Amino acid sequence: MITLTTDFGIKGPYVGEMKGAILSINPEAKIVDVSHSITRHSIIEGSFVMEQVVKYFPPNAIHIGVVDPGVGTERRAIIIEGTQFLVLPDNGLATLPLKWIKPKAAYEIDLKKMETIIGRKISSTFHGRDVFGPAGALLSLGYEPSRLGKEIYLEEIIKLDLEPKKLEDSWLLKVIYIDDFGNVILNLENYERPKYVEILGRKIPYVDTYGQVKPGELLSLPGSHDYLEIAVNQGSAADILGLKVGDEVKIKLLYKEG
Amino acid sequence: MITLTTDFGIKGPYVGEMKGAILSINPEAKIVDVSHSITRHSIIEGSFVMEQVVKYFPPNAIHIGVVDPGVGTERRAIIIEGTQFLVLPDNGLATLPLKWIKPKAAYEIDLKKMETIIGRKISSTFHGRDVFGPAGALLSLGYEPSRLGKEIYLEEIIKLDLEPKKLEDSWLLKVIYIDDFGNVILNLENYERPKYVEILGRKIPYVDTYGQVKPGELLSLPGSHDYLEIAVNQGSAADILGLKVGDEVKIKLLYKEG
Amino acid sequence: MITLTTDFGIKGPYVGEMKGAILSINPEAKIVDVSHSITRHSIIEGSFVMEQVVKYFPPNAIHIGVVDPGVGTERRAIIIEGTQFLVLPDNGLATLPLKWIKPKAAYEIDLKKMETIIGRKISSTFHGRDVFGPAGALLSLGYEPSRLGKEIYLEEIIKLDLEPKKLEDSWLLKVIYIDDFGNVILNLENYERPKYVEILGRKIPYVDTYGQVKPGELLSLPGSHDYLEIAVNQGSAADILGLKVGDEVKIKLLYKEG
Repeated sequence: MITLTTDFGIKGPYVGEMKGAILSINPEAKIVDVSHSITRHSIIEGSFVMEQVVKYFPPNAIHIGVVDPGVGTERRAIIIEGTQFLVLPDNGLATLPLKWIKPKAAYEIDLKKMETIIGRKISSTFHGRDVFGPAGALLSLGYEPSRLGKEIYLEEIIKLDLEPKKLEDSWLLKVIYIDDFGNVILNLENYERPKYVEILGRKIPYVDTYGQVKPGELLSLPGSHDYLEIAVNQGSAADILGLKVGDEVKIKLLYKEG
Repeated sequence: MITLTTDFGIKGPYVGEMKGAILSINPEAKIVDVSHSITRHSIIEGSFVMEQVVKYFPPNAIHIGVVDPGVGTERRAIIIEGTQFLVLPDNGLATLPLKWIKPKAAYEIDLKKMETIIGRKISSTFHGRDVFGPAGALLSLGYEPSRLGKEIYLEEIIKLDLEPKKLEDSWLLKVIYIDDFGNVILNLENYERPKYVEILGRKIPYVDTYGQVKPGELLSLPGSHDYLEIAVNQGSAADILGLKVGDEVKIKLLYKEG
Repeated sequence: MITLTTDFGIKGPYVGEMKGAILSINPEAKIVDVSHSITRHSIIEGSFVMEQVVKYFPPNAIHIGVVDPGVGTERRAIIIEGTQFLVLPDNGLATLPLKWIKPKAAYEIDLKKMETIIGRKISSTFHGRDVFGPAGALLSLGYEPSRLGKEIYLEEIIKLDLEPKKLEDSWLLKVIYIDDFGNVILNLENYERPKYVEILGRKIPYVDTYGQVKPGELLSLPGSHDYLEIAVNQGSAADILGLKVGDEVKIKLLYKEG
């Protein structure tokens, strides 16, 4: 099975073209739409969405991600092989899903080889259709990734700096996702459950569900993604705090009552 | 085959996570996207969309519906078995699709059993991924629903009050759906075809297609869903009449010319 | 495999109903969503999207297109058979995809026959569900199209006038698509690569990628669809030039430096 996570939008022909390119190579491929509405060129958001999806897919799933502002430049097109496959541009998009697939090898897709395989010239602006889609389709047919390009060092794959930074008595965190309701998701996992969270000078309760504070009030909670989440009951935390994906913010976890 | 009707939105990871949870249990499952853009928490709208879809699916189709404002509370997660299956929260979402599946039994999904089956803790905020998706996947493998939880009384399933009310010379109806063009769909079926409809003090013609009145004028027509529909040729009836889903409105059907 | 390109929108039950109608006839059908967000009633846009998709699909793919402002009138519902199949209203939607399928025969779908096959009356407003979907499903089962209606002349199929017009020293072109970023796609293919393009009194460079001009500046480039494209680096060419789909515009291709 092949999942698709892109910033192509849902109106135009792009998604259909990529699906056609895949099904031309493997008509039996099972294609699973994840999202085609990643914020254009937001590699962090795409990485977060791919991570969450990878966590719940079975072994050998092939995840194609196309958030690719550098298409047509020197950035590499890569395949990462682990318990599942990632097929994506080497621009940081792999950062978060990589944590879940026990990577054992990576390959740079050879564009010349792909041109031979697809039987036409690769466009300089649409590698989803001409490179990533066909590569995923070939993997779904059981092709060894080494047939699609030379092996590269796993260590050299580009990673975004999305590690939480421990300061003396606080954390310097990054906003990695804002959902449709304005809930803000920060890059802190596996923390001890606090009583309160301090963010931008505000002390807010750490609770289990949105309804535990009054409408319009800020709260923090575990969320369904294991990352620390800041929300507003029936409101938008992103708007109230003025935060967007990629912003850095200082957070204190408070463990004492009062 | 498993259909998905949710209010998750199309941008984020939620839809992909639910699909992953399903495919982890049954990699051969045929997943059919119905809509992930149900108005957030609008149980009436979700129920209407599920009804229309159920009407056209073949026997044994499994319909998962997730419009679930009460997730994490005591509301039950249920399976209704009939000519087709419904898998959804017991919050009224079943009201309209239930009419079409000749229900013969219902079951309350046992969350502890589901935890054992999926091999991880059930999130308190995302039962689409952790409960409804996996339950639908197990049904698609041929599991008897009784293996997923104890039988409950069909009569106890929560139903929204969406019956049309007959008054002396009129009907008290509810808006059950407003489409992208502002057409207003009311909960009246199987009525005798009138010549005019009176709504909010306006007498409007009952016709066959939008083009039978001038642009900007109100009309009523059978619509493609068998429910009474109020529309404006090249305009929005919802805007002109100030109606939204769930509103009650008094309607007269007029059978005499003039 | 059956692709779907429609203007139904993604919120309501329409897409699900059409999928149900298809799967009721062929439960094994592989349905591929292309777009349900074609601008309502924009036949040119639908035709462009279908063309791009047809170019990348394998032989025998069945492409259902429903952009159908004339539903319920005398316009014909047709099947065009070539290397791939088109199933759509005879309203011009076939114009562009037709170029790619080597058409060898066309058929007018017989609505009475379809009523017998689907076992219910055909709605006057929703032929996607009641005519085009079922016809595509029957083709996917291997039905000869001649069983669904009488053969018609290929020459009589309605075509939009989307041929580029050669003037003395310029072209009169039509806008056939505007993407989410405001890039304007014009109906000129197979032209010799110019140095500059003159459009609406502006002389703009013809380059390879958006980044070759300053942010906010106009450019022209081959695009990924082989048609001439007008764009603005990090901006909207459609807004700056005041163009929309269907507009005519005079273009000069300039081959001399300076």
